[in-house]
Amino acid sequence: MRGVLRRANQHRHECLCHVVALTLLAAGTGMAADSPNLTEQYRPVADKLIDAALADTEGYKRLTYLCYRIGNRLSGSVGLEKAIAWSAEQMKSAGLTNVQIIPTKVPHWVRGAESARMLAPLDKPLHMLGLGGSIATPPGGITADVVAVADFNELDKLGRDKVQGKIVLYNQEYHGYGTTVQYRTNGASHAAALGAVAALVRSVTPLAMQIPHTGAMNYDPNQPQIPTAAVSPEEAMMMARLVADGVPVKVHLEMSAHMAPDADSGDVIGEIRGKELPDEVVVMGGHIDSWDVGQGAQDDGASIMACLQALALMKKLGLQPRRTIRVAFWVNEENGGRGGERYREFVGDQIKNQVAAIEMDGGAEAPVGFGASVAPASQEMLREIAKLLERVGAGEISGAGGGSDIAPLMRDGVPGLAERTVGTHYFDWHHTETDTLDKVNPEDFRKNLAALAVMGYALADMPGRLIGVAGGGRR
Amino acid sequence: MRGVLRRANQHRHECLCHVVALTLLAAGTGMAADSPNLTEQYRPVADKLIDAALADTEGYKRLTYLCYRIGNRLSGSVGLEKAIAWSAEQMKSAGLTNVQIIPTKVPHWVRGAESARMLAPLDKPLHMLGLGGSIATPPGGITADVVAVADFNELDKLGRDKVQGKIVLYNQEYHGYGTTVQYRTNGASHAAALGAVAALVRSVTPLAMQIPHTGAMNYDPNQPQIPTAAVSPEEAMMMARLVADGVPVKVHLEMSAHMAPDADSGDVIGEIRGKELPDEVVVMGGHIDSWDVGQGAQDDGASIMACLQALALMKKLGLQPRRTIRVAFWVNEENGGRGGERYREFVGDQIKNQVAAIEMDGGAEAPVGFGASVAPASQEMLREIAKLLERVGAGEISGAGGGSDIAPLMRDGVPGLAERTVGTHYFDWHHTETDTLDKVNPEDFRKNLAALAVMGYALADMPGRLIGVAGGGRR
Repeated sequence: MRGVLRRANQHRHECLCHVVALTLLAAGTGMAADSPNLTEQYRPVADKLIDAALADTEGYKRLTYLCYRIGNRLSGSVGLEKAIAWSAEQMKSAGLTNVQIIPTKVPHWVRGAESARMLAPLDKPLHMLGLGGSIATPPGGITADVVAVADFNELDKLGRDKVQGKIVLYNQEYHGYGTTVQYRTNGASHAAALGAVAALVRSVTPLAMQIPHTGAMNYDPNQPQIPTAAVSPEEAMMMARLVADGVPVKVHLEMSAHMAPDADSGDVIGEIRGKELPDEVVVMGGHIDSWDVGQGAQDDGASIMACLQALALMKKLGLQPRRTIRVAFWVNEENGGRGGERYREFVGDQIKNQVAAIEMDGGAEAPVGFGASVAPASQEMLREIAKLLERVGAGEISGAGGGSDIAPLMRDGVPGLAERTVGTHYFDWHHTETDTLDKVNPEDFRKNLAALAVMGYALADMPGRLIGVAGGGRR
Repeated sequence: MRGVLRRANQHRHECLCHVVALTLLAAGTGMAADSPNLTEQYRPVADKLIDAALADTEGYKRLTYLCYRIGNRLSGSVGLEKAIAWSAEQMKSAGLTNVQIIPTKVPHWVRGAESARMLAPLDKPLHMLGLGGSIATPPGGITADVVAVADFNELDKLGRDKVQGKIVLYNQEYHGYGTTVQYRTNGASHAAALGAVAALVRSVTPLAMQIPHTGAMNYDPNQPQIPTAAVSPEEAMMMARLVADGVPVKVHLEMSAHMAPDADSGDVIGEIRGKELPDEVVVMGGHIDSWDVGQGAQDDGASIMACLQALALMKKLGLQPRRTIRVAFWVNEENGGRGGERYREFVGDQIKNQVAAIEMDGGAEAPVGFGASVAPASQEMLREIAKLLERVGAGEISGAGGGSDIAPLMRDGVPGLAERTVGTHYFDWHHTETDTLDKVNPEDFRKNLAALAVMGYALADMPGRLIGVAGGGRR
């Protein structure tokens, strides 16, 4: 529709064509031919929300508290439980209703003390961080020579003879998160299949600043479990280079990680009840858990605080959409996904009334718009709404969107959106000690807030509904 | 001269003017009016050197060995002594003559175990690195509330009442190295004067990646000595923000640093003896010591390896300049400057024969040219030479140059040059664990090598001599 209107502006004399085109397209989106388009319909309220978002300081203050007073919050940690209780309070103080913690058990992985040291050719500590889910080394640690490979193919070519009893180092250069992360998730089992005693993985990041990046890993049930950790890009490069030059590299690895029994935790939700269709729900959120390093500021604290603040702004402005709009802080996105699954269960047979789900889990750098896994006609409706966000640079609608936490909803046909940003530095900070409040630019935060508020409100209020498509991406 | 030639090319019909201007300017630079300009005189040899430099792999291999097999090398450390012995061997194997280690004592500061922990409002370890020269805390450490200030003025306004017994945190944002570094060098004594028990300094860097940056500090002999350390920018911002919000911040600091007796060490030199004026010397170098973290790759390993390789290339090409060209690896630049002083002493009354000194100590990112503390007419001569380096982007001559190690020579009138680079990321890595080989782009390294080889050769071979000016900058 946006394209048609632009043409109409360019050729005002072609009135008849314009009307015909508009009618055809409106029919295609499921709207009555005489409805005003969503851009014009929601411009006044969108401008109010954007003005309020760009002037907001409360959201960033909430984020400051989460980062500086609560800190990181891995599933099972005291930090997470503090964050959950505090979040429910914040939702209440923002005037939301039906605030509740939806209880669920979460896996409880505990890092414990850990270290790695290169013993030869130089004796020096390595910048390491155990991968989430890894087992411990035997007491006293593992000392072994390092076999360095760029990828699984190289490892397979070396074969069991050269890998048996060794520590495998995956020194894959960063080629985008989706491609490179497989060494973090599957590297240990692949190495174990060839007899390796441990696996080290070059941190999955484009930036080498001696920062190791943790993240989830999975054991193949058909292979022995071996301990696994990330090392900094610098040290992966160094060890790989030494090995390539024929210099034996010996490493001592010591990890005491363990899985504790599942812990009690929960998703946190709150809402503004719809004034006409209260049973129909637009849910918008991110994950409240984080890794056990840094402050979970970009991943995903800023997102949940922006989602909450979007509803807080609606309350302040006295805006009540026709449908219910709900904010959800899903738990355990990082290492289990229990929160997203629990939310699906909570929704139950009301799934048909879940009008849309928006997940924000790519950080809070400058927003560009939304990715949406919806039918083509619905994409057009989203474009009409997104046009209102051009003011804050967030006017793009791209063709696929979703997220780990809303995947269980999308599986059952709920239209899923991902709020998207430029993502310039996100993977510099992701899952590290550097994911701290200072990384969230307050101005960018406010633009994200504006984008969420406008999209959330419009989806909850507009006459039509989006049409979902089967499936939805996990990031 | 370069300007005149350009004008001549543009107005070829104005032949008479051209000759007159050339004659006047040539007189101004101390050249005979009938000499060819330096650009044309040295173009053939410069092109040979640049071609060789851009094809060179040996220099970067040497740097790889220094970084990966020897590692960091603080004055007094085993690493430094290994680096010195290895460097002398490398100079010999490059075919240099008069290779020697000029012995000197160096200060021997030992970091020892150290840590800092925030106890309130959250209990978490801090990313810290003691400053070079700091004393230890008392055994068991220091626990105190934090007073946070942006600068000395703010601290003075707080006064003794609010500072006494506290840990002072200087949270100055990076405003360029020269301005910001004063908190690292003088912060402890300034805080001690008001009764502080320790001083923490936000790392002097534009990049916040949880990396603390060490560096030298000095105690004012009139104030009590208190321990002092750098913290990461993130944690400085966090603590300052908490304090500003009225939230008490308590920190536990434990350091066991001490000064050991002065250690035996030395500068390493080697040379190509001049074929006509062997007593006249152009010296070119950087410092062989580094801080005790990272690999001292940009600071200053790449520089010394490039200087050595510049002479190695001359030997390979069979080039012998009229004067002696010498490479010097000065020791103890980072925390004492003994190497530069010792070299001045070594030169003795031959100071008048020190034709020029080039120092490279700003990293090995893409070169832009040279800064030179020389008389205006000499700047013109340098411009003629630098024109040959436009091929590698290093054609700029700027108005001031020098360096810590050559300052003692420049003090006595030796013309001093600093090899300069774009310096885009230098202070991201400076004095940290991140100053590692991977930061040195091999292509940039080769361009620096080209710049040093051409400038060094031309200064050692050209008919005239540069005229120095009094004094010379320390960085």
